[in-house]
Amino acid sequence: MGKDKDKNSVVLKVPKGTKDWDGKDMVIRDKIFSTITQVFKRHGAVTIDTPVFELKDVLTGKYGEDSKLIYDLKDQGGEICSLRYDLTVPFARWLAMNSSIQNIKRYHIAKVYRRDQPAMTKGRMREFYQCDFDIAGTYDAMLPDAEILRITCEIFEALGWKGRYTIKLNHRKILDGIFQVCGVPEDKLRTISSAVDKLDKSPWEEVRREMTEDKGLDGEVADRIGEYAVLKGGRDLLEKLQNNATLSANESAKQGLADLDLLFTYLKSFSVLDRVSFDLSLARGLDYYTGLIYEVITEGSAPQTKEGQDLQRAGKKEAKPNKGPTNIDGDEDRSNDPSVGVGSVAAGGRYDNLVSDFSKKQQIPCVGISFGVERIFSITKQRLAADKTAAPIRTNEVDVYVMAFGGKGFEGLLAERMDVAKRLWDAGIKAEFSWKVKPKLPQQFKAAEVNGVPFAVILGDDELAAGKCKIKEMGLAGDHPEKDGVLVEMKDLVEEVRARLAKKEEVEMLADGVNGMGVEEGAREAAKTG
Amino acid sequence: MGKDKDKNSVVLKVPKGTKDWDGKDMVIRDKIFSTITQVFKRHGAVTIDTPVFELKDVLTGKYGEDSKLIYDLKDQGGEICSLRYDLTVPFARWLAMNSSIQNIKRYHIAKVYRRDQPAMTKGRMREFYQCDFDIAGTYDAMLPDAEILRITCEIFEALGWKGRYTIKLNHRKILDGIFQVCGVPEDKLRTISSAVDKLDKSPWEEVRREMTEDKGLDGEVADRIGEYAVLKGGRDLLEKLQNNATLSANESAKQGLADLDLLFTYLKSFSVLDRVSFDLSLARGLDYYTGLIYEVITEGSAPQTKEGQDLQRAGKKEAKPNKGPTNIDGDEDRSNDPSVGVGSVAAGGRYDNLVSDFSKKQQIPCVGISFGVERIFSITKQRLAADKTAAPIRTNEVDVYVMAFGGKGFEGLLAERMDVAKRLWDAGIKAEFSWKVKPKLPQQFKAAEVNGVPFAVILGDDELAAGKCKIKEMGLAGDHPEKDGVLVEMKDLVEEVRARLAKKEEVEMLADGVNGMGVEEGAREAAKTG
Repeated sequence: MGKDKDKNSVVLKVPKGTKDWDGKDMVIRDKIFSTITQVFKRHGAVTIDTPVFELKDVLTGKYGEDSKLIYDLKDQGGEICSLRYDLTVPFARWLAMNSSIQNIKRYHIAKVYRRDQPAMTKGRMREFYQCDFDIAGTYDAMLPDAEILRITCEIFEALGWKGRYTIKLNHRKILDGIFQVCGVPEDKLRTISSAVDKLDKSPWEEVRREMTEDKGLDGEVADRIGEYAVLKGGRDLLEKLQNNATLSANESAKQGLADLDLLFTYLKSFSVLDRVSFDLSLARGLDYYTGLIYEVITEGSAPQTKEGQDLQRAGKKEAKPNKGPTNIDGDEDRSNDPSVGVGSVAAGGRYDNLVSDFSKKQQIPCVGISFGVERIFSITKQRLAADKTAAPIRTNEVDVYVMAFGGKGFEGLLAERMDVAKRLWDAGIKAEFSWKVKPKLPQQFKAAEVNGVPFAVILGDDELAAGKCKIKEMGLAGDHPEKDGVLVEMKDLVEEVRARLAKKEEVEMLADGVNGMGVEEGAREAAKTG
Repeated sequence: MGKDKDKNSVVLKVPKGTKDWDGKDMVIRDKIFSTITQVFKRHGAVTIDTPVFELKDVLTGKYGEDSKLIYDLKDQGGEICSLRYDLTVPFARWLAMNSSIQNIKRYHIAKVYRRDQPAMTKGRMREFYQCDFDIAGTYDAMLPDAEILRITCEIFEALGWKGRYTIKLNHRKILDGIFQVCGVPEDKLRTISSAVDKLDKSPWEEVRREMTEDKGLDGEVADRIGEYAVLKGGRDLLEKLQNNATLSANESAKQGLADLDLLFTYLKSFSVLDRVSFDLSLARGLDYYTGLIYEVITEGSAPQTKEGQDLQRAGKKEAKPNKGPTNIDGDEDRSNDPSVGVGSVAAGGRYDNLVSDFSKKQQIPCVGISFGVERIFSITKQRLAADKTAAPIRTNEVDVYVMAFGGKGFEGLLAERMDVAKRLWDAGIKAEFSWKVKPKLPQQFKAAEVNGVPFAVILGDDELAAGKCKIKEMGLAGDHPEKDGVLVEMKDLVEEVRARLAKKEEVEMLADGVNGMGVEEGAREAAKTG
């Protein structure tokens, strides 16, 4: 991320809020992608890919006040386009355009773009990945919703986060019912909902002030909302609300409570009921949700320090981005701002009308979730850094380094090294050799060691003359009988290498355990077996 | 790609020159990606990821007259950015910014953007994928170059294109030498090189006309170039040029010929010498190449019909895009234009100065290749369509459909189906069940059949009461003994399913053969085993 100015005065940097991914970060991120994809496929998902930019009209009116964060393309004399802001609206646009599709489980892993104020080390960026999974189609109530939450749990378990995440959930119809029985006017339902949504970042007094002072709500109405909004629980809370005569008499609340009742039954069947928290303060910002809503939080989701909380309480820092373009594009990075947490690591809900908003002919209810990869990465990386027992992560996957040595008059055995590498590649084995005509042996060993290559195949004039070569497992201790390598017949080389790779893999599988493999173990395993 | 106008008058389409990817196309494209990635990793490559847009200054002056095809972002009050035009310049920018990196084999698979005139079915698009592999670092001559060509062959063999592709290669220093001995003035070297590059699309008379009339070259000089430019061959042509006293006396040509001599030796060691054609008409458009250049052609690379060739010869159609923004953004798609071929499916070369152009402190020679995924896809899809024996491609990978049936009073066994699905998921088995409380048996069978799911687990009241359920392999013929399924103990279900999946996979592996698996076979195999 360094800046560098050359004499031709091109500033060497990436655009604000974006970054290059390389080295071990890339390996960790790829492992997160593959873990998530594996779970999506286990549930029968297929993937689609949409363009990175859409006609601007497609995005218009979908994101409320956040629309100002959309990146536009320059008008170069054609269609007016914008970079996509999320993957949900393009999915709905695609469904609306493809009337032959009446149901689908689709996942989509791709970058989205928001001109927000970045906090890079906390995974808040302007270009970032989302991993979306959505179920479109008309089904019996809460069954797809329950499977989405089951998938969410499978993913965080597979990432090794067992016991370190919570799915907060709520229901738009319950929220609306509460607002109605508390006395919120119909035209203020959504704006009051937005205010409630800030309860994870701001204290009640601040939210109450926004409701009454900024949004003109009666103080008594706000206080009645406050009594509900603090409630959290599970089935117990659901039963309490079901037994609340006022609320049960409200049609919207009644529908929402019935949905949750069913959902809890299904989550129990899926053995994930203990992972959810029914939380009446959860409201979610986007307008298009129509039913169940949820977000996943973990350690680091909230602002980190008491100082940060105090600052927020005093209203000195806002979680919302600055308004002016000058501020937005200044050099500020909010990574060190204690009032900025990582936020939720996944979120979503049911949106039954978004597709029909595009095309009245397509009435397809949908429910989905979006995983924030950079935030998951950011937390995973911190944990890896804190884990002193974690093995180093390899960045490449080479199995064999082909090297040569010889005494006086050594010509480098280049043709022989190339031939051996070719035989290994033909057999699908990952192999490298030095791109020097006459490489020195220590340099070859160093190249293999730096990359953690597990095996060396060593060629020498005498051995070749006898039709043999040496296989050496790297890093064996001084007293190991095979420390200096094992002579094998040249004609058996591929089989000999294969057998050693298979054995090494087996040993490591047993050592790591096959089940419940988290990213830490996964990256280590990938590092070792290639 | 249909257009649809709703009453709220949002035009439902994707931007010109872009497309949505879904269904079987997505499966084929993913298979191409994984085939290419596998080969890159076999050669020790690591991947990096750069932002989809760069500061505009980074791209300025890198693409010659094609710069007008760059997409710019709108100035929204911050940095001035453009969408990346290729992956090579961002790679060089990244190397220049990271001075600790002195060598790397990196691959990068990502979308790039060009405001060109599209021909969608031929894989010429405005948003398209490139798969790049580059080797940066100071090594002995031609060794990294030879490995790039070996990798290229491994990829096309793995894609099942054996015998259907040719790597055309040439060397900028040989070209420059030829131009010099023919009498081209120094300041016209690059522009004459660009003219020669058109020989794959235009006849010699047209190229000669451009050289003499448009670019003011002496006719006799052009004719001397013409004598060289028609030459094609292998070692024979190399020896002929080496024996040409005039050319051998030219320092630039001499260096280039020595490089090719070494390269041919290395390609022979790698068993790929027969895949290349030394072709003096190959020049490549981009300015930044400094040594070896190459491109891969296949059937469909050239314009398809004689009519197309005639049109080109008459100068009525140009392979270059139209100039005006109105034309560029018109509705025209050139897919049906016979003068447009798919073009090369991969191309690249050595560029030793691009990194140091960004930062004088980083002197890193590079060589690389870029695979055009949409073009490879387009040819692969045509071949699949023509192959009547190809098995249908599955879009999802579900192994087991969990279903239930019952007579009068059947309640759907929902909790039981959910429990079985959960057990399968816990074991890592891909499974689905109907999201209906009381699904009908034919509907469940149909859902499994539509997606080609290989196994059904069937639950019934009587079987469950006896602690059993049925596993049925889908699609067994009427006289097969297990056509109606096999009863297994409920407690052994996971093991029983696993054993059947493993057996099925083994049978199919043997049937397909393990080696030389092309995309056709690969997709089929993926389709069957999941």
